[in-house]
Amino acid sequence: MKRTSRDIRTANRCEVLRRIIADSPTSRQELAAVTGLSLATVATLVGELLDLRMITEVGFEDSAGGRPRGLVAVDTSGGALVGVDVAETYVRVELFDLGLNVLARAEEDVRPGETRPEQVVARMAAAVGSVVARAGVEDTRVLGAGVSVPGQVDPATGVCGYAPDWDWHDVPLRDLLSERLAYPLHLDNPLRAGAVAELWSGAARGRGNAVVVGLGTGVGAGLVLGGGLHRGVSNSAGEWGHTTMVLDGRRCRCGDRGCVEAYVGARGIMLHLRELAPDSPLLHPGDQTATIDALARGLASGDPVALRVVAETARYLGAGVADLVNLFNPEVVVLSSWVARTLGEPLLHAVREAVTRHALPRPLASTRIVLSPIPTDPVCLGAATFALEGALETAGQRHHRRSLPGSRSAAPSP
Amino acid sequence: MKRTSRDIRTANRCEVLRRIIADSPTSRQELAAVTGLSLATVATLVGELLDLRMITEVGFEDSAGGRPRGLVAVDTSGGALVGVDVAETYVRVELFDLGLNVLARAEEDVRPGETRPEQVVARMAAAVGSVVARAGVEDTRVLGAGVSVPGQVDPATGVCGYAPDWDWHDVPLRDLLSERLAYPLHLDNPLRAGAVAELWSGAARGRGNAVVVGLGTGVGAGLVLGGGLHRGVSNSAGEWGHTTMVLDGRRCRCGDRGCVEAYVGARGIMLHLRELAPDSPLLHPGDQTATIDALARGLASGDPVALRVVAETARYLGAGVADLVNLFNPEVVVLSSWVARTLGEPLLHAVREAVTRHALPRPLASTRIVLSPIPTDPVCLGAATFALEGALETAGQRHHRRSLPGSRSAAPSP
Repeated sequence: MKRTSRDIRTANRCEVLRRIIADSPTSRQELAAVTGLSLATVATLVGELLDLRMITEVGFEDSAGGRPRGLVAVDTSGGALVGVDVAETYVRVELFDLGLNVLARAEEDVRPGETRPEQVVARMAAAVGSVVARAGVEDTRVLGAGVSVPGQVDPATGVCGYAPDWDWHDVPLRDLLSERLAYPLHLDNPLRAGAVAELWSGAARGRGNAVVVGLGTGVGAGLVLGGGLHRGVSNSAGEWGHTTMVLDGRRCRCGDRGCVEAYVGARGIMLHLRELAPDSPLLHPGDQTATIDALARGLASGDPVALRVVAETARYLGAGVADLVNLFNPEVVVLSSWVARTLGEPLLHAVREAVTRHALPRPLASTRIVLSPIPTDPVCLGAATFALEGALETAGQRHHRRSLPGSRSAAPSP
Repeated sequence: MKRTSRDIRTANRCEVLRRIIADSPTSRQELAAVTGLSLATVATLVGELLDLRMITEVGFEDSAGGRPRGLVAVDTSGGALVGVDVAETYVRVELFDLGLNVLARAEEDVRPGETRPEQVVARMAAAVGSVVARAGVEDTRVLGAGVSVPGQVDPATGVCGYAPDWDWHDVPLRDLLSERLAYPLHLDNPLRAGAVAELWSGAARGRGNAVVVGLGTGVGAGLVLGGGLHRGVSNSAGEWGHTTMVLDGRRCRCGDRGCVEAYVGARGIMLHLRELAPDSPLLHPGDQTATIDALARGLASGDPVALRVVAETARYLGAGVADLVNLFNPEVVVLSSWVARTLGEPLLHAVREAVTRHALPRPLASTRIVLSPIPTDPVCLGAATFALEGALETAGQRHHRRSLPGSRSAAPSP
């Protein structure tokens, strides 16, 4: 275990700010109660966040018979954060205030044949420049930019080891981006961005253990364990899409057979449709988005083929989610990403029913299965959240270096 | 996240003692280097452990040009720990010193028809009394007893919610035991005992992320994540044996179909043998132990049926272990429990080969797959380790209550 005192201090600072964002305005006493930290520790961390101008004092509330309690709230104007969601066919950028509210958004298409790293980086920089300018935010107030790239990304080095959609290998993405953007840059992948978005602002908020299932073209699981993101030893945990569900079954794009993704990802769902009703007008060959959209409309109108396709998908997805329930015993499983959002409640209900058939009673009893409640792009939000966590970490380091022994902000924090 | 300052202090105290047990004698400087804790924190924790007489000063070592460094070592005579492994047909008890070395062991049979809670508790108490007496250890020196029960156990309440082998429901096991044993009692299940044994004394020592696969009659995974045991929200994480591997496949004893356990547990392996060679002399109908033993002898002598049974088992087990590698991205996967121990290296090699076919390259590259290196019963060892962790927690509480502000031992520790 290499969890240093600084790691713990950063985690506690994140936890306190997360609660302040969720519950503004709130008091130190209330923060101590919900985090389990001591009042002295909370007071120290609140002092740091006040000094950093991320939060502000907003008055007092009466406490039953005691002294009035000071209230703090997030200072939404204390800084801005950029979240970038790079996908196969687009680059989407959103700018957030410190309350994680969207200030502006932009989207750039990525056309086939324009997917070399320098080309995609140029699109990203253009979109970021556009949102910052449109929101009227000064460059110096942007605390950082988080960038989600679909593939293997090493947050420490900023290198994209492999991006299958574009056949990128070992692209020094952060270095390329830093030639065009002056903000601190934080790279990660969409699974982890989706998970951290749920942890700060969605269904995993206040939960120690949550699994965020990403259902899109690719399939995976973002893991919130022990109150934080589980990355694994080489930062590649969460490859749930390549769990064997049908030994020797359908061929998966990873090269193996019978993977969960081959049955519940967008391609797998299209294949169910083709097998059940090859001539269905719902099928748009080669166009995943159009097909999933058509299925959603079919569900709304009670189309029997659409209903059967969702039932078939849920048969596999329910067994797979039950595996996650049995293995992790989480408080919540969140269905996220575009396929889950598009198919919505009908998929959720079918999955819940299938999970009940497969999961063991004890872990099932303590797990809720929900759709992501995040109304905007969770990947942009999660990417911006990585930037916020990064700002808290480096600001904390600066803060602790600057402080003199004996001053309030240098008081020991656990 | 409800990780309090006390939780962190207990975890750090465990971590420091774990390293001292592993590396005795060692210095505070070395402990700080391997744990990532500050030297001041390590010095405080070492002071506590010295005050508790769990460790002792054993001299000095030269440091290149600097002051000689004080060395500490575990004080093996500072206390004793009981580990109890309750299984379907036996109760095994081992007594350990503080270095986690076995001082004495005893085993009592549990006969069919003598499996009521009071009967099993009487067997346990008799075996515990026997090892403590034989080792010549005074009762007051026994710091605690850990008890592993195969089923659902709540360590907080000491209640066994369900033990399938004996059809126990909501048995207040700790209360029953405490009428006969005066030691602090710590109840848990064999999966978690096996995992904590690897964490303290086996292949997961010094690892932040490890999966301990228990292969016996039942199958499951003990999860070491972020340096500690992952229990889940209702203490039932790790039910990997009931992951769906073959949708609509073989019936499992849990009532579902196609579970991993139905293909790689002792019953599943017997079924492979029956399907491949129904008349094989290796098959001992109704006797799992005799059949697995016969398979092991067959492997040693190159029996083609035994080789085919292990290959078939590894086909499923390899796919299942690859799922764990993809999902957790652990540093090590440990194959533990009696089936893995009996089938040994031939099973390990076949599993490694199958994992290579199924796992993704990136997590595969950072994972080792090994047999448990623990030479004795890992469940007894793990149960005793729970007692040691419990002693560290309560001793720490007493210690902190007792200490006066300003004394060395009351210095703030993170």
